[in-house]
Amino acid sequence: MGRTQARGRSGRRRGAPDTRGEILAAARAEFGERGYDGATMRGIARAAAVDPALVHHYFGTKEKLFLAAMEIPFDPVIISERIADTTSTMGIGERAIRTFLGVWGDPVGRAPILAMLRSAMRHEAAATLLRQFITRVVLGRVLVAFESMPDGALRAEAMVSHLVGLAIVRYVVKLEPIASVSDEELIALVAPVLQRYFDGGLPPSPG
Amino acid sequence: MGRTQARGRSGRRRGAPDTRGEILAAARAEFGERGYDGATMRGIARAAAVDPALVHHYFGTKEKLFLAAMEIPFDPVIISERIADTTSTMGIGERAIRTFLGVWGDPVGRAPILAMLRSAMRHEAAATLLRQFITRVVLGRVLVAFESMPDGALRAEAMVSHLVGLAIVRYVVKLEPIASVSDEELIALVAPVLQRYFDGGLPPSPG
Repeated sequence: MGRTQARGRSGRRRGAPDTRGEILAAARAEFGERGYDGATMRGIARAAAVDPALVHHYFGTKEKLFLAAMEIPFDPVIISERIADTTSTMGIGERAIRTFLGVWGDPVGRAPILAMLRSAMRHEAAATLLRQFITRVVLGRVLVAFESMPDGALRAEAMVSHLVGLAIVRYVVKLEPIASVSDEELIALVAPVLQRYFDGGLPPSPG
Repeated sequence: MGRTQARGRSGRRRGAPDTRGEILAAARAEFGERGYDGATMRGIARAAAVDPALVHHYFGTKEKLFLAAMEIPFDPVIISERIADTTSTMGIGERAIRTFLGVWGDPVGRAPILAMLRSAMRHEAAATLLRQFITRVVLGRVLVAFESMPDGALRAEAMVSHLVGLAIVRYVVKLEPIASVSDEELIALVAPVLQRYFDGGLPPSPG
């Protein structure tokens, strides 16, 4: 940012320091305007006036470009795989809240999510963007754990909604005592409750 | 608003149409600056340059003045009493989500809460205001139902956090299918889960 733009001898832009920044700025604008589903790597390249190959070279996929543009400092793939972990269907409630507190407990981790949420509460377009991001990038992967059960998507979203509310009440509104209890205390209380969305009407497992 | 200010023959302000508006504007400023706990009827009267008796005359209590200033179109007393209803400890999960969907399902009902939440996500002072409002006006009354159990406040707040998250995911982010299912479908799924916060480690009641 702020540096003089380097160009190749051909006059075409190369990977100069601020080309990356220009792509990111174009990506933010395109995602904001067209939503996650509507924005394309090609369209973002056009808006940044660079070759699409350069966008792929820098960012690989639309998802990675989105994460970079929104400055999201964690990888939703790792997060969702940690929650979904199909090798064990037991304890998804605890896995979900543990992973979630790991991200939200870190001010750097929650800042960009809060920013997206704040925008979503003001602008319909930002709500669309957040909805599509959660659906495609996060929920799509968590749903594999729920796909065999009736209302799996609804149950997964109910679980997500609880986690979102918990984050707002604990880290933003800071109600006491929920803002001050330890992660472990909160996990002990919330995990078995979340687990019910997964276990359906079955009696909860002990502990 | 916008009308010429009426004054009594003494030159002192009386209950002219915009005196009420001036008190409300002063109240918003005082609550915003000092929080719910810090603002006083006397201080608001001073800021509006009216006699404190006039503030009491128009609004009765600080709580009612706050609700009017924030344009909250429902009565938290009725809401919390409906949820707490100590004559029956059964089904507090269902009572909570039913009451909550009744408020949030109405765009007029949720607009001021969303506005407060949005501010809380941007400004520490607004977060303090919202926290104190929830604690004094809403939770204080719901807690009577939880007061006999260990971690009662924590459990009540966990329940509230789920409802807040549900509202955001259903009405703001509009994830599908949770945004489109009927209230009854959502109540059937969420009520027994919320109920666990009340029933503690006991096996959930059937249905």
